[in-house]
Amino acid sequence: MIPPRATAQRDNLEPHNFEPNNLEPNNLEPGHEGEPLLGLSDKLRRGDVLATACPSRAVLRRVTSRWGVLVLIALQSGTYRFSELRRSIGGVSERMLAQTLQGLEADGFVARRAYPVVPPHVEYSLTPLGAEVADKVRVLADWIEMNLPRISQSWPDGTTPPSTDAEAS
Amino acid sequence: MIPPRATAQRDNLEPHNFEPNNLEPNNLEPGHEGEPLLGLSDKLRRGDVLATACPSRAVLRRVTSRWGVLVLIALQSGTYRFSELRRSIGGVSERMLAQTLQGLEADGFVARRAYPVVPPHVEYSLTPLGAEVADKVRVLADWIEMNLPRISQSWPDGTTPPSTDAEAS
Repeated sequence: MIPPRATAQRDNLEPHNFEPNNLEPNNLEPGHEGEPLLGLSDKLRRGDVLATACPSRAVLRRVTSRWGVLVLIALQSGTYRFSELRRSIGGVSERMLAQTLQGLEADGFVARRAYPVVPPHVEYSLTPLGAEVADKVRVLADWIEMNLPRISQSWPDGTTPPSTDAEAS
Repeated sequence: MIPPRATAQRDNLEPHNFEPNNLEPNNLEPGHEGEPLLGLSDKLRRGDVLATACPSRAVLRRVTSRWGVLVLIALQSGTYRFSELRRSIGGVSERMLAQTLQGLEADGFVARRAYPVVPPHVEYSLTPLGAEVADKVRVLADWIEMNLPRISQSWPDGTTPPSTDAEAS
């Protein structure tokens, strides 16, 4: 559905449909209108990706980075060595894969295991936390893969995605 | 869970646990091990984000671009003018917001409506397709916001996300 026109006078959009009138006592039951209600304290305790300063935004950026998405998806099917992972993700450079793995490791999503052998043997896998976030990323990628026929109806020739600068951001 | 060690001899990871042995006739019932099985034809018809040439990857990049994610989330709560949208998304420049909206419009996720008035009045909203993909993006962002306490346990000081080059990709 297309959401209704919002009131224009407020300065900021409220994320999560967290409207001031949800704070009325008679709206505070959980499950109201099928959505879990957020109290003010929840809103302060949890992150807010729309706020520049919130650390959740840095995590979201790493998880949804060009290669982060694909590494999480690739690691869903097992534990892999660096070279195996690189082969599985078309187009990734050695440097970008290393940086991406480091970022995902820093957030606790990827476990790196180095075996003390010669030549070095290093394996990467999802942590339990990483498996959870990879599931969400996979659902998004699945949706896109399955809905390509609908999406491509908007493309000028129906088969090639238009290239826009927004990709590079 | 941490996925089991994969066999090392194959050249490419198969997405979606699409293992060759799933093609054995006795494994072809749908719902086997709780996952819908993909036949070869499904695999060819739908996209594959791990393949460089697949158009699904360009869509995934736009949807998960730095600002694409946040625009989709912001538009979930209504129809907005450019300036309202810009205020709601901390840190976005005019140029990046315009490029991001163009990209999402090109994939059919965002509808742009210009009213022939002076000064110009342009509104943006999610299309029905955009509302679907925004739901998936929102689930991912929600997971990150709610799990920040667990994620931050991996950060050196427990409160500041480490900055890595992988964010910029």
